[in-house]
Amino acid sequence: MESLTAQATRFGSSILDRADTLAAISERPAMLARSYLTAQHRQAGERVLAWMREAGMRADFDPMGNVIGRYEGANAGAPAIVSGSHLDTVIDAGKYDGIFGILAPIACVAELHRGGSRLAFPVEVIAFGDEEGTRFGASMLGSKALAGAFHEELLDRRDAEGVSLREALGRFGGDAAAIARLRRDPASIRVFIETHIEQGPVLLEAGLPVGVVTTIAGASRVHVKVEGEEGHAGTVPMALRRDALAAACEMVLAVERRCRATDGRIVGTVGKISVREGGAINVIPARVEFTLDVRSGDDVERRRAVKDIESEFLDRAAARGVHLEWTLLEEVAATPCDAIEQERLGEVIRAMGMPVRRLPSGAGHDAMQLARVSPIAMLFVRCGNGGVSHSPRETLSAEDAGIASVVLLRYLQSVT
Amino acid sequence: MESLTAQATRFGSSILDRADTLAAISERPAMLARSYLTAQHRQAGERVLAWMREAGMRADFDPMGNVIGRYEGANAGAPAIVSGSHLDTVIDAGKYDGIFGILAPIACVAELHRGGSRLAFPVEVIAFGDEEGTRFGASMLGSKALAGAFHEELLDRRDAEGVSLREALGRFGGDAAAIARLRRDPASIRVFIETHIEQGPVLLEAGLPVGVVTTIAGASRVHVKVEGEEGHAGTVPMALRRDALAAACEMVLAVERRCRATDGRIVGTVGKISVREGGAINVIPARVEFTLDVRSGDDVERRRAVKDIESEFLDRAAARGVHLEWTLLEEVAATPCDAIEQERLGEVIRAMGMPVRRLPSGAGHDAMQLARVSPIAMLFVRCGNGGVSHSPRETLSAEDAGIASVVLLRYLQSVT
Repeated sequence: MESLTAQATRFGSSILDRADTLAAISERPAMLARSYLTAQHRQAGERVLAWMREAGMRADFDPMGNVIGRYEGANAGAPAIVSGSHLDTVIDAGKYDGIFGILAPIACVAELHRGGSRLAFPVEVIAFGDEEGTRFGASMLGSKALAGAFHEELLDRRDAEGVSLREALGRFGGDAAAIARLRRDPASIRVFIETHIEQGPVLLEAGLPVGVVTTIAGASRVHVKVEGEEGHAGTVPMALRRDALAAACEMVLAVERRCRATDGRIVGTVGKISVREGGAINVIPARVEFTLDVRSGDDVERRRAVKDIESEFLDRAAARGVHLEWTLLEEVAATPCDAIEQERLGEVIRAMGMPVRRLPSGAGHDAMQLARVSPIAMLFVRCGNGGVSHSPRETLSAEDAGIASVVLLRYLQSVT
Repeated sequence: MESLTAQATRFGSSILDRADTLAAISERPAMLARSYLTAQHRQAGERVLAWMREAGMRADFDPMGNVIGRYEGANAGAPAIVSGSHLDTVIDAGKYDGIFGILAPIACVAELHRGGSRLAFPVEVIAFGDEEGTRFGASMLGSKALAGAFHEELLDRRDAEGVSLREALGRFGGDAAAIARLRRDPASIRVFIETHIEQGPVLLEAGLPVGVVTTIAGASRVHVKVEGEEGHAGTVPMALRRDALAAACEMVLAVERRCRATDGRIVGTVGKISVREGGAINVIPARVEFTLDVRSGDDVERRRAVKDIESEFLDRAAARGVHLEWTLLEEVAATPCDAIEQERLGEVIRAMGMPVRRLPSGAGHDAMQLARVSPIAMLFVRCGNGGVSHSPRETLSAEDAGIASVVLLRYLQSVT
């Protein structure tokens, strides 16, 4: 019998080759960019369809532009184990974000097909057409449709060229009128499992190829405006200033301090900051705006942290005599992964001789949507370069891709 | 005899009226903007010429576009007392920055002329064509020419429309070839005194209408680049981040702390800050740039503070594992005001029953240039609204304008 290492190597190198093939299908010459309902989406989808059919699946585009393949199980009418991720990318993307979660289950099904074996359940593999939301400014459109969370107003969203989602769907050969019927009956899905690169450094730091996701973090997003008083940089004494930037900097550091104190349970980020009209080297900033993104697997703890941060901001603003405007932009609850499926994944990993690392997912994933109609599970695979993603510097080793695919295969085989 | 209050009121209200007249001469419809060598410069200059001539002066544009008026003294050939400031403005300017320093000495000469009296020395009043540097990106062009500090390469500077300074001078009726001959012989100037709004809140806080400038601050200007590591806001634990913005915020606060600790002798400002490409709400900033402006009347103390700030930045960068790039853009030495003339100004103020407040000028002024060929003095007048300038919110009361003009007149009369 083939060794685990040999099997993983075979899986891994084939998956990396296929990821290279898909990465060559881009809208832009010098970088990877592939958005929803474009000619490149069509082309990459056709490639995936061919691989699915080669693996013994019936496969086709659905009316939303998702590519869906199905490998029948031994028991007709049993609910399906569904696995997948997204085929679209951000602009100047890496090769594995989303893509790995399509290629790994195809490799698993191909392996079953090669051995002529069928599971008790059908296995479906889905390549969602949109997750990143790059083209229409609304994300996870593909998985939302399958989860019954696609609101019809989304069809009127327009891309940068003014083309509506409805029009783009029509040109792609999709069918806007059929979207409502795409919602999956919960009885038709046994479990949805998504494999994905971690997009962070936790597994890398821990020296582990895979990890079991406990929950997909919830998020609070806030826009903050600080208004102080403009002044000449040379003429206003330090003691008489109401410097909006200095106040904002205290706030940025307060976010960091509050989140650091939680032992990894909360992350908080200020990603954008700007002085009104760019500011000037010789002018004390009067107005500064910045964004705040706070995430946690624990909604209660996240809300408490956001509350604390807001009240610390107010204190700082009062102490400096500046005005604070706090606008909550968005609040998304955490999505827990199914406890039993986490346990099942953990057992597969343990049986392969690896320690089981559980970790939350700070990023959102298609599994969040599928959770509306199915139990979900997520398997993370280690990525390199400090865990960078959404960048050409994103890496995934053939070994890790292989090990994660074997974990997925054994998981599929273990579902009862 | 007319009381001091009556005289000051008369001076003040006339000066404010004239400032309104000049403020109506603008290149832009809804705001005050008047830059060098424009039709509005010509028009405002003609107005000033008329007021000078009305005050008994010989007056004309010089080849640089400066307006110069001369009121002869009792002794032919004696060096002149020169007073003036600039006629140009920033975009969306206030009405008094620069302008007050032209109108006050014209009012003083008009007063002498009205009484038929002459001083021992001639009095010259200058309205410099350019100080703000708005049009050609180089400041104090008018006073540089008179101080022999105008370098010929400046003539090739171009404005936003591509017009060179040389061409603009020609169209204005100036004469680029004559600039070198404009340098004033030090023997021809007894003292240069500039009156100016404070552009800061010190006199306002002290409750005083005027103050004696001790020195025009020197400045160090630095461009700082902080390079950390990009990462997904949801997936990189706080402890594993190398957040360039958080590092930059610590640095901004370090500047504030270092300058606050000097008891008003140093000011430091971060006026611009930006995340590369604007950043994104869900991305840990990898590169942040900001500017630093440090000023002091004491060059040694300023250089020491800048050195301390740089080494603190390096410490912070090292502690956070981010890379620091520190680029010194500009270093300008402080320009002291003449000690004897400060004393003389102080005596005039004291004789008028007011306490003498000495203060440095944090902003640069034309007097800095004239210091190359003459002793200089500066008189600050209180401005309102927290000391704001370079803004339509800039204010000057008629009372304060009047008191400052009377101080100037008595100073002119006291020079020996």
